[in-house]
Amino acid sequence: MSASEVRALFAVASRPDVVSLAGGMPFVQALPTEDVLEVVRSVIEDDAAQALQYCGGAGLPGVRRAVAGLMAEEGVTASPDEVIITNGGQQALDLVGKIFIDPGDAVVVEAPAYVGALSAFSAYQPRFVQIAMDDEGLVIEELEAALARSERPKFLYTVPNFSNPAGVTLSLERRHRLVELCRGAGLPIVEDNPYGMLRFEGEPLPCLRTLDPSNVIYLGTVSKVFAPGVRVGWVLAEPGVLTRLTLAKEAADLCSSSLTQLVAERYLESERWRVNLRHLIDVYGSRRDAMLAALGEHAPAGTTWTQPQGGFYVWVSLPPGIDAAALLPAAVERKVAYVPGTAFYPDGRGRDSMRLSFSYPPVEAIREGVARLGRVLTEAAKADAGNAPVVPVERAGSRPSG
Amino acid sequence: MSASEVRALFAVASRPDVVSLAGGMPFVQALPTEDVLEVVRSVIEDDAAQALQYCGGAGLPGVRRAVAGLMAEEGVTASPDEVIITNGGQQALDLVGKIFIDPGDAVVVEAPAYVGALSAFSAYQPRFVQIAMDDEGLVIEELEAALARSERPKFLYTVPNFSNPAGVTLSLERRHRLVELCRGAGLPIVEDNPYGMLRFEGEPLPCLRTLDPSNVIYLGTVSKVFAPGVRVGWVLAEPGVLTRLTLAKEAADLCSSSLTQLVAERYLESERWRVNLRHLIDVYGSRRDAMLAALGEHAPAGTTWTQPQGGFYVWVSLPPGIDAAALLPAAVERKVAYVPGTAFYPDGRGRDSMRLSFSYPPVEAIREGVARLGRVLTEAAKADAGNAPVVPVERAGSRPSG
Repeated sequence: MSASEVRALFAVASRPDVVSLAGGMPFVQALPTEDVLEVVRSVIEDDAAQALQYCGGAGLPGVRRAVAGLMAEEGVTASPDEVIITNGGQQALDLVGKIFIDPGDAVVVEAPAYVGALSAFSAYQPRFVQIAMDDEGLVIEELEAALARSERPKFLYTVPNFSNPAGVTLSLERRHRLVELCRGAGLPIVEDNPYGMLRFEGEPLPCLRTLDPSNVIYLGTVSKVFAPGVRVGWVLAEPGVLTRLTLAKEAADLCSSSLTQLVAERYLESERWRVNLRHLIDVYGSRRDAMLAALGEHAPAGTTWTQPQGGFYVWVSLPPGIDAAALLPAAVERKVAYVPGTAFYPDGRGRDSMRLSFSYPPVEAIREGVARLGRVLTEAAKADAGNAPVVPVERAGSRPSG
Repeated sequence: MSASEVRALFAVASRPDVVSLAGGMPFVQALPTEDVLEVVRSVIEDDAAQALQYCGGAGLPGVRRAVAGLMAEEGVTASPDEVIITNGGQQALDLVGKIFIDPGDAVVVEAPAYVGALSAFSAYQPRFVQIAMDDEGLVIEELEAALARSERPKFLYTVPNFSNPAGVTLSLERRHRLVELCRGAGLPIVEDNPYGMLRFEGEPLPCLRTLDPSNVIYLGTVSKVFAPGVRVGWVLAEPGVLTRLTLAKEAADLCSSSLTQLVAERYLESERWRVNLRHLIDVYGSRRDAMLAALGEHAPAGTTWTQPQGGFYVWVSLPPGIDAAALLPAAVERKVAYVPGTAFYPDGRGRDSMRLSFSYPPVEAIREGVARLGRVLTEAAKADAGNAPVVPVERAGSRPSG
């Protein structure tokens, strides 16, 4: 599609009668306004001069303490001075790319990989090595084979919990194998964990950072447990990396907003964040349920999808012959939007898949959106069957299905 | 100095008994807390869902309208859709560097130049071409000579109003000559104007963007007219550049904080910003007066300094033999801090100069700080005279003084 076609598509997709299963917006409407009001009011009343001023490149001490406390909830031990505050997780990705990647360097990512990581790293012109995932996350044997093949990559980037876009979680056994393999290969791991606290069921698994603090750079954000509008993310890393990140941060924008850092600190200091998070998890969990049930009801035969235990996303693999990228304009015409799988591969793969997000639309909209999508896919599958070349019966059986 | 020496120095310099003339912090304490409180309260009460959510990479429409209005106050015509919001002016510099500079490209900057611009651009490995300034700003003949010598630079970066660090303002005649010369040479101008509205006396001069909208990329910020803690800056540029900047912004951090954009918008929409800015100008103007008077009283013979008509900074040129970088530890020991001129040159020049900021310390502190500095400089000048090689009288007269 041309840029103007994409713009036209997005203009239509943002109309209120279109159900968007495309974006990954948190449902911030679930936060009680009075809680937020109380926090911002207390920040300005108690400390307007600090809230309105510049701060150091690494961020304000209070919010660094608060995010260290948040990490402890997931079993990650961190001291505040091992943390640098960034503008959400995305700036953490940009700064990591900036200090590690020289043009042509190899970087290992998941297949499919978070599109924002691909675009952040791409600015520094790496060569991506993509490792397949299955329902238990990264396939370790594929990583072993790639490391045997490839020159030394600069780092491995992964979202082990409820990954974006695949919605899968790295199993405990693979976590152990991954940190061991990477430590042995001298390959630093960049662990991105925006969704870890949004678990709907099952037991939390240890973070990679917990399993190997010396070889894992950990990225976090308050975007999903509080709000993306404050743009507060962070990196936990060893002092040498932290110093380079801080210099890169200062060159990039001097410092993050003191006002929003103080707001995030106060919000996390109060106990209201736990209550609100519990509510958010209930909301997202019921939306996940609605999406999986609707897929079961409406997806054409041959469609498969992941079963996320948390997070925002379901990854849908389509029957042979359906092209998710080519089908998007028709889907938007029928008032449902998604992200074609191609967005999550740097090499053009992914036409046979799509990412659906259940984070933002209400349950009823999810049901209706998936029903619309099911009709579009079913018609495309029928059209594909009608267009398939006629193969003589005696030869068809001898051919691989492709 | 080693990194640990610099850290030790900063630790001492930040003690309350040290007068810091080093940092360029705005005096945000001059903003009435109740004005800020009213703004943040109204943003959350009226539109918490938007304030807490992601927004598009170019920024929210309302704040883009508000900064277009702010530019109009300085005679710059801009439509909101020609503007992209950045995290303060610093991120605008980073994004401009990112889209324009390939390693080895020439970039023209002032001598001395804003240290934050040097560090932002340096990440992209340019070759800096520095053009001398005098009391009327950039010396146009020097630029002409450099353009004749140099291969085609990617852009020219300048702070025409009350420059950081020199405190000088480009004269009207040179503004016309500069835009004409650059247009003829096909050299885009990046005009950075953080201080333009902080004029203490004299008539405002037209922005370079006003004189040549087609060849000038304009950078602004609310950091000095409102508060740096909201991290709201912007770029005004033509559509092709804006598209590339927006993609770079999205890769860098997705978007700026919606909360702080709405706060900046509301603040600028109300009329309180004019009253508060008038007060800020009075505060800064009286501090500038105090600094210039104290320099006249305490600086040793042979010291010269600029006469800023606005902004935050005075640039001090020292008598021969005094090294501002070497003298800094002794000055901090005597409880006054400044930035040595070396910070503002990429090539190691500047030991004979220093930047003093009058924006943050109260008048009494400025008087005391400059008096302390005067004693340090006077002693250094005496020591230098005492250490000077003894030159036979009959030969001294025939030598140049430098």
